[in-house]
Amino acid sequence: MNNVIKVSQKAGLPPGSLIHVGDIRGSKVQIRVLDYCADSVNEYEFDNITKALTSPNNGHVRWIEVAGIHRVEVIEKLGNYYDIHPLILEDILNTKQTPKIDQQSEYVFITAKNLAYQNDSERIAVQQVSLILGENYIITFLETDHDCFRSIKERLKNPKSKIRTLPADYLAYAILDCIVDHYYMVLEDMGEKIELIENLIMKESNPTVLHTINRIKREMLIIRKAVWPLREVMNSIGRGDSQLFHESTLVYIRDVYDHTIQIIDTIEMYRDMVSGMLDIYLSSVSNKLSEVMKILTIISTFFIPLTFIVGIYGMNFKMPELEFEYGYAGVWIVMISISLLMFRYFRQKRWL
Amino acid sequence: MNNVIKVSQKAGLPPGSLIHVGDIRGSKVQIRVLDYCADSVNEYEFDNITKALTSPNNGHVRWIEVAGIHRVEVIEKLGNYYDIHPLILEDILNTKQTPKIDQQSEYVFITAKNLAYQNDSERIAVQQVSLILGENYIITFLETDHDCFRSIKERLKNPKSKIRTLPADYLAYAILDCIVDHYYMVLEDMGEKIELIENLIMKESNPTVLHTINRIKREMLIIRKAVWPLREVMNSIGRGDSQLFHESTLVYIRDVYDHTIQIIDTIEMYRDMVSGMLDIYLSSVSNKLSEVMKILTIISTFFIPLTFIVGIYGMNFKMPELEFEYGYAGVWIVMISISLLMFRYFRQKRWL
Amino acid sequence: MNNVIKVSQKAGLPPGSLIHVGDIRGSKVQIRVLDYCADSVNEYEFDNITKALTSPNNGHVRWIEVAGIHRVEVIEKLGNYYDIHPLILEDILNTKQTPKIDQQSEYVFITAKNLAYQNDSERIAVQQVSLILGENYIITFLETDHDCFRSIKERLKNPKSKIRTLPADYLAYAILDCIVDHYYMVLEDMGEKIELIENLIMKESNPTVLHTINRIKREMLIIRKAVWPLREVMNSIGRGDSQLFHESTLVYIRDVYDHTIQIIDTIEMYRDMVSGMLDIYLSSVSNKLSEVMKILTIISTFFIPLTFIVGIYGMNFKMPELEFEYGYAGVWIVMISISLLMFRYFRQKRWL
Amino acid sequence: MNNVIKVSQKAGLPPGSLIHVGDIRGSKVQIRVLDYCADSVNEYEFDNITKALTSPNNGHVRWIEVAGIHRVEVIEKLGNYYDIHPLILEDILNTKQTPKIDQQSEYVFITAKNLAYQNDSERIAVQQVSLILGENYIITFLETDHDCFRSIKERLKNPKSKIRTLPADYLAYAILDCIVDHYYMVLEDMGEKIELIENLIMKESNPTVLHTINRIKREMLIIRKAVWPLREVMNSIGRGDSQLFHESTLVYIRDVYDHTIQIIDTIEMYRDMVSGMLDIYLSSVSNKLSEVMKILTIISTFFIPLTFIVGIYGMNFKMPELEFEYGYAGVWIVMISISLLMFRYFRQKRWL
Amino acid sequence: MNNVIKVSQKAGLPPGSLIHVGDIRGSKVQIRVLDYCADSVNEYEFDNITKALTSPNNGHVRWIEVAGIHRVEVIEKLGNYYDIHPLILEDILNTKQTPKIDQQSEYVFITAKNLAYQNDSERIAVQQVSLILGENYIITFLETDHDCFRSIKERLKNPKSKIRTLPADYLAYAILDCIVDHYYMVLEDMGEKIELIENLIMKESNPTVLHTINRIKREMLIIRKAVWPLREVMNSIGRGDSQLFHESTLVYIRDVYDHTIQIIDTIEMYRDMVSGMLDIYLSSVSNKLSEVMKILTIISTFFIPLTFIVGIYGMNFKMPELEFEYGYAGVWIVMISISLLMFRYFRQKRWL
Repeated sequence: MNNVIKVSQKAGLPPGSLIHVGDIRGSKVQIRVLDYCADSVNEYEFDNITKALTSPNNGHVRWIEVAGIHRVEVIEKLGNYYDIHPLILEDILNTKQTPKIDQQSEYVFITAKNLAYQNDSERIAVQQVSLILGENYIITFLETDHDCFRSIKERLKNPKSKIRTLPADYLAYAILDCIVDHYYMVLEDMGEKIELIENLIMKESNPTVLHTINRIKREMLIIRKAVWPLREVMNSIGRGDSQLFHESTLVYIRDVYDHTIQIIDTIEMYRDMVSGMLDIYLSSVSNKLSEVMKILTIISTFFIPLTFIVGIYGMNFKMPELEFEYGYAGVWIVMISISLLMFRYFRQKRWL
Repeated sequence: MNNVIKVSQKAGLPPGSLIHVGDIRGSKVQIRVLDYCADSVNEYEFDNITKALTSPNNGHVRWIEVAGIHRVEVIEKLGNYYDIHPLILEDILNTKQTPKIDQQSEYVFITAKNLAYQNDSERIAVQQVSLILGENYIITFLETDHDCFRSIKERLKNPKSKIRTLPADYLAYAILDCIVDHYYMVLEDMGEKIELIENLIMKESNPTVLHTINRIKREMLIIRKAVWPLREVMNSIGRGDSQLFHESTLVYIRDVYDHTIQIIDTIEMYRDMVSGMLDIYLSSVSNKLSEVMKILTIISTFFIPLTFIVGIYGMNFKMPELEFEYGYAGVWIVMISISLLMFRYFRQKRWL
Repeated sequence: MNNVIKVSQKAGLPPGSLIHVGDIRGSKVQIRVLDYCADSVNEYEFDNITKALTSPNNGHVRWIEVAGIHRVEVIEKLGNYYDIHPLILEDILNTKQTPKIDQQSEYVFITAKNLAYQNDSERIAVQQVSLILGENYIITFLETDHDCFRSIKERLKNPKSKIRTLPADYLAYAILDCIVDHYYMVLEDMGEKIELIENLIMKESNPTVLHTINRIKREMLIIRKAVWPLREVMNSIGRGDSQLFHESTLVYIRDVYDHTIQIIDTIEMYRDMVSGMLDIYLSSVSNKLSEVMKILTIISTFFIPLTFIVGIYGMNFKMPELEFEYGYAGVWIVMISISLLMFRYFRQKRWL
Repeated sequence: MNNVIKVSQKAGLPPGSLIHVGDIRGSKVQIRVLDYCADSVNEYEFDNITKALTSPNNGHVRWIEVAGIHRVEVIEKLGNYYDIHPLILEDILNTKQTPKIDQQSEYVFITAKNLAYQNDSERIAVQQVSLILGENYIITFLETDHDCFRSIKERLKNPKSKIRTLPADYLAYAILDCIVDHYYMVLEDMGEKIELIENLIMKESNPTVLHTINRIKREMLIIRKAVWPLREVMNSIGRGDSQLFHESTLVYIRDVYDHTIQIIDTIEMYRDMVSGMLDIYLSSVSNKLSEVMKILTIISTFFIPLTFIVGIYGMNFKMPELEFEYGYAGVWIVMISISLLMFRYFRQKRWL
Repeated sequence: MNNVIKVSQKAGLPPGSLIHVGDIRGSKVQIRVLDYCADSVNEYEFDNITKALTSPNNGHVRWIEVAGIHRVEVIEKLGNYYDIHPLILEDILNTKQTPKIDQQSEYVFITAKNLAYQNDSERIAVQQVSLILGENYIITFLETDHDCFRSIKERLKNPKSKIRTLPADYLAYAILDCIVDHYYMVLEDMGEKIELIENLIMKESNPTVLHTINRIKREMLIIRKAVWPLREVMNSIGRGDSQLFHESTLVYIRDVYDHTIQIIDTIEMYRDMVSGMLDIYLSSVSNKLSEVMKILTIISTFFIPLTFIVGIYGMNFKMPELEFEYGYAGVWIVMISISLLMFRYFRQKRWL
C-alpha cells in the first residue's frame, strides 16, 4: 500500500527537524543546474551541492533540479543558501506531503504529486515534486533520478522558444502544466482500462473483475488526492495572491486551473461509471445463480416424480398392475404424459 | 467510450500550441458567412477562410460559422484576423473542453455542448459549439458540417423577425437558447425510454434491462456534464458581468438560465427514478430466485419421502408387509396421507 | 409519466412566442372577476376576456381568475391590458414551469404548483398556479376549471373578515398559504399510506409492496420539486425585496416560509422511513429464501441417506444380510438411528 | 406514527386562527405561577387563567407554566394579557411546530421538543415546550401535566441557589439546558439499546433484529428533528441577537449550544454504527443461506452417485456382476472409494 | 462501547456544578510541576495540589500537569488559584467533551483527545487532554497517570533545545503537535490492519472479516470525532484570534493544522478502501454460494436422469428389454451417452 503515512518516527521531535520521510528510491543524489536567458542555455550536472551553488550563473534565470531528496544535508545547504524556512525544508523531505502552496515574501513554495503509470501499466507511480520559485531562480525537488520535465528542457534548448525570454514564474507555470498533463495521460490509461472491464463484464463474471474494479477505485483515490489540493493551489495563484507571479503568467495559470477542474470532473464521471459497472457485476452474479438454480429445478422437477413412479413398481408387493397386459406400456404413457405437462408448465413460466 | 479525454498528445507542448484534439468527423471545412441588418440578409459559403474574411460586409452584424475545426490553419487565420488570444484558439480546437465563458475586453468566448439523439435514437451525439461574440460579429465553431442552427437562420431570413433589428448579443442569446432547447428534446427522448424500461421491468427481468438502465445513467452523466457548467456560464452573463451583453438581452439570458436549472432538476428526478427502477429490478431477480427455489422445494419435499417409502418395499428382505392382503393398498394409503399432510403444510405456509 | 417535459416543440422559436405547453384539461376558459373593498364584494363570470377587462371595477382590489390557459389569445389580451412582459406570459402558458418569482417594477409574478390527491386517492394531481400581483389587482391562472381557492372566496364574502380591509398583497399571501396548506393534506395522505405499507411489510412480502414504495418515492419527488423552489420564493418575498409586499404582510409570508421548511423536513423524514422499509422488504425476501432452503435441506438431508440404504437392499446381489433373521428389523433400526442423529444435529443448529 | 402532521384541518382558515393541532393528552389545564426574587419564592396553582393573571406578583421574576394547551381560550387570554402576536399563539397551539426562535421587540418566543423514553423504555415521548421570555416574566407551555422542569423548581426553592438572584433570561437558559440534558438521557438509553443489538447480532439473526434496528433509526430521526433546529436557535441567541438575553447569560447559552453540537455528533456516530450493524445483519443472513446450501450440497453430492450405483444393481437384467463371487463386496468397495474421494474433495475445498 | 455519553447524571444541576464524568482509571492523582527557563529546568512531583501551587517558581514558564481528574477538589483549587471560569472547570471534568477552544482574556482553554493503540494493539485508548495556557504558565489535565508527553519533557531537559528559550505558547504548540503525531501512529497501525484484511479477503471469506471491518470503521469514527473539531481549533489559533499565541508560534500552529487536514484526508481514503473491501467481501459470499450451487447442480443433473433410468429396469413388470441379449449393455450405452451430452452442455456453459 503506497499511501500509508510513515511519519510516526518523527513523533515528539522538535519542528523543523530535517528527517527524510519516504522510501529511498535511488542511492545517488543528482543536481542539475540550468541557466538560461534569451540568448543562451547552459546545463551542468553536479554530485555536490556546494559546487552547484557556487557555480557562476550564466543566465537571467537559474533552474536547480535536485533529483533524490534522501540526503538531508543537501536540502539543508540549499535551504541555508537561499534562506528557506526550516518548516518548508521539512515539507520537502516529507514525501507524504499533501499538495499545497506557501507564499513567503521572498519566494513561493509549491508541492505537488507527479503521477505516471509504470512501465507495465499496472500501478500508478506517485512522485512528489516540490518547487521553490524565487525572483530569478527555481529549485525543483524530485524523489528519483527520473527526469519528468524533459520536454520543458527541450523547449528551453530551442532558441526560438518563448519560454527563454520570459521570467522564472513562466517556468514554474510550465512545470505545473507538465504535471497536470501527466494526469491526463494517467486518466486516458484509466479510461482504457475501464472500457476493457466494461467489455469483460458483459461476457463473464469471474471474481477478478471485482478486484480490478477495486484497484481502479483506489487509483482514482490517488489521483483525487493529488488533484483536489492542486486545484486549490492553482486557484490561489490565479487570484494573483503572490507578487512573484506576473499578471501575464496568470492567464496561463488560470488555464491550468481549468484543466484541474476538468480532471476532477472526469474522475467523478469515471467514479459513476465504475459504480454502475459494480452494480452490473453484482447483479450478474445474482443472475447466474438464478440461472443455475433454474436448471437444477427443471431437472429435479422433471425426474423426481418419474423416479417415484418407477420406484412404485420396483416394490416387491403383488401388484395387480404387474399382471396387466399393457402394464409396462401404461407406465410409460403415464410418465410421458407427466413429462409433457411439466414441459408445458415450464414453457408457460418462460423457463424453457 | 465517447468521453475519454485524448489530450495527452499535448503534454509538454508550450501553451497556445494549436493542435486539434478530437475525432475528425468530416473531411471538409465549410465556412458560412451571414451578414444581416434590419433591411437585408446575405448568406455566402466559402471553402477558403481568407476569402471569407475579406468578403465585403453587407450588414451591421456578421455571423461567421466554421463547420469543421480539424484544420488548424483555418482557426489560426481567423484568430489572427479578429485578434483572439492563442489560449482561446487552443480551447476551440480541443473538443473535450468543459463548457465555460471567458470574458475579454474586446470579445466574449463561450463554449458549450450541443446534444442530439442520433437517427437511430440510440446514442447521444455530443458536438462542441464554440462562440466568439464581438461588438458586431459572431463566430461559431462546429465540429461537423451538420447545421444545428437552421431554425435561427430561418428566423433571420424572415423580414418581420425581431432578431434582424437587434445587435449581435441577441444572436448569441438565440444560439445558446437553441442549444438548451436541444437538451429538452434529448430529455424527452430519455423520458420516453425510462417509461419504456419501467413497463418492461414489470413484466420480465432479463439482464438487458440492467444494461439499458446503465446506458441511461451514462447518458444522464453526459447531459449533466454539459448542463452544469453551462448554467454557471448563463448565470455569469445574466449577472451582467460583460458589457458586450446589453441590458435588454439579459432578460432573455436569465430566461435561458432558468431553463438550465429546470433541466438539471429534471435530470435529478430521472436519476432518482432510474435508481428506484434499479431497486425494483434487483429485487425482482431475488424474487424470481425465491420463486424458483420454492417450486424445487415443493416438488422435492413431496416426492423425496414417497420415493423413500417405495424404496423400502423394493428391498429384497423377506418383509412381513409383503404378505399382508392389503399391503399394497396400505402403502398407497400411507403415501396419500403423507401427500395430504404436505399439501396442508404448504397451504399453511401460503406456498400453494 | 406526468413529469416529462414536453416543450421541445418550442425549439428554435423566438423568445416570447406564446405557445401553450401541457395537456388541455378542459375545453372552456372561464374568467372570474372578484372586486372587493371593506364594504362590498362583487363576483362576475365571463366567457370573454375583453368583456371581463372592460367591466367596471367596484372595489379597491380586483381579483381576476383565469381557469384554463390553453387559449393563447386570452393570455395575450390580458398581458397587453396589464402590460406584462412576453417572457412572463410564456412562463404562464408553460405548465412545466418550475416555481419561481419574478419581480418587476409594476408587478410581481409568482408561479407555484397546487397539489391534490385525486378522488381515488391514488395519484397526485399537479396543477400550475400563476399569480400576478399589481398595485391593486391580482390575476391568477389555473390549468383547469377546478376552483382550489374556494375557501378564500368564502372568507372574502364574509363581511367581518379581515382580508377585505387589507390590500392586494394580503390576498396574494392568502393564495400562497392555501397552496401550502394543500401540501400538508397531501403529506397526511402520504403518511397514512406509509403507515399502511409498514404494517403490510410485517406480514407478507409480495412484489407489489415494492411498486407501492416506488410510487410513494416518486410522489415525494413531485412534492419536493414543488416545495423546494417555493421555499426560495417565500424566502425572497419574506426578505422584503419587493415594495409591492407591505411590511405588515411580510410577517405572514415568513410564517408560510416556516411551513415550507416544515414540509421539506417531513418529506426528508418520510424518505428515511421509506428507505428503511425498503431495507426491511429486501431482507425479508432474503430471509424467506433462506427459510425455503432450510426446509428443502432438512427434507433432503433426512431422506437422501435413507433412500440410499433401502437402495442397497434393492440390489439383486446375493447379500448375506438378506438371510439374517432380523435383517429387515436391523435395517429399520439403522435408519431410525440415522434419523435421530440427524434430528439432534438440526436441533443443535437451531433449525428445528 | 407519531410524526405525521395533522394540520390539514386548518387549510383555508385565515392566519392566526387559534386551533389546537395535536393529540389532547389530558383533560385538565393546569396553570402554575411561580414568583421569585433573591429573598422569596411563591408557587401557586390555578385552574383558571384569569385568576392566575390577576394574582399579585411577589417577586422580580414571574414564571407561568401552562400544562395542557388544548383549551384555546386559555392561550388566547394569556396572549391578550401579554400582547403576544396571534401567529405566535398559533405556533404554541400547533404541537407539530419545528423548534424555532422568534425575536420580537418586547419578548422572545422559543419552541423546542422535550424528549423522554416512556416508562417501558420502548418509545420516545415527544412533548412540545413553548417559551415566551419577557423583561421580567417567562411563560412556558407544555402539552401534558407532566412536570419536566421539577429539578429547576427545586433549585429555585433553594435559598442559596444562584438562579434566584438572576434575571428571567437565566431561567430561560435553565429550561433550555434542562431540555438538552433530557436529550443526553435519551441518547444514553439508545446507546444501551445499540450495544444490546450488537451483541444479539453476533449470536443469531432473526428478523426482529431488523425491526429493532429500524425502530432505532426512526428514533434517531425524531431526535435529529428536535436537535438540529434547536442548535440553530441556541446559535442565534448565543450570537447576542436579542437584547433580552444579557451578556452574562450568553456564556451559558453558548455552553448549551456546544451540547447540541455534541448531541448531533453522537447521533451521527450512532447512525454509522447502526448502518454497520445492518451490513453485518444482512451479510449474516447471506452467510447462513450459504451455510445451509453447503450442507445440502455435501449430503446430495455424497449420496446421489451412491444411490445411482445401488440403483444399477436393482435392475432386473441378467447382469454378469451379480454372478461374481465378490460382486457385492466389490460394489461396497467402489462406493467407499467414491465416498473417500468426495471427502477428500470437500476437505480440499475447506467445506469439511 | 467507549463512546456512549454518560452525562445524564448531571441533568437539572446548575451550570458549573463540578462533577467528574467518565471512568476513574487510577486511584491516585499525581501533580507534576516543571519550571523552566533558558538556563535551568526543575521538575517536582506532588500528591497535594496546595503544596504544588505554593511551591516557589524557578523558571519563566511553569508547566503543571495533573494526571487524574476524578478528584474534583483538586480541579477546584487549581481553578480558584488561576481564576478559571467554572464552566471551563466543568469541561475539564467531563471526559466526554468534544475537542474545542475557549479564548478568555487571561488564558486560553483547549481540550483534545489523545489516542493510542493499547499494548495488545486491539483497541484504541482515548484519553482526554485539557490544556490551559496563561501568560507564563501551562496546565495540562490527563485522565490517567500515563505520561504521554515524555518526549517533550526530554527536549525540555536538553540544554541546547530551542523550546527552553521560547515562551509558554510554544510549549502549548509542542503538546498539540505531540497529540497530532500520535494520530499518525494510530493511522499507521490502522493502515497495516487494513492491508492485513485485504490479503485475508482474497483468500477466505469467514464472517470474522466482517467484524474486523466493522471494528476498523468504528475506530475511524473515533479518530474522526477527535480530529475534525481539533482541526477547527488549530484553524482558530492559526488565524491569530488569540493574543496569547505570538506571531512566531503561529507558523508552527499552521503546520499542525496542515497535519490535521492530512489526517482527515487519510481517514477519508481509508474509508473508501474499507468500503471497497466490504463490497468485495459481500460479493465473495455471493460468489461462494453460486459456486456451491453449481456443484450441487452439476451432480444432480448428472445423476438424477441416470437414477431414473436404472429405476425403470428395477420395476417388476415383464419388460421386453430384459430379454434382449445386449439389454444390459444397451442401458449402459444409453447412460454413458446421456453423461457425455451433459458433459458437453456443462462445458458449453463453462461450468466444467
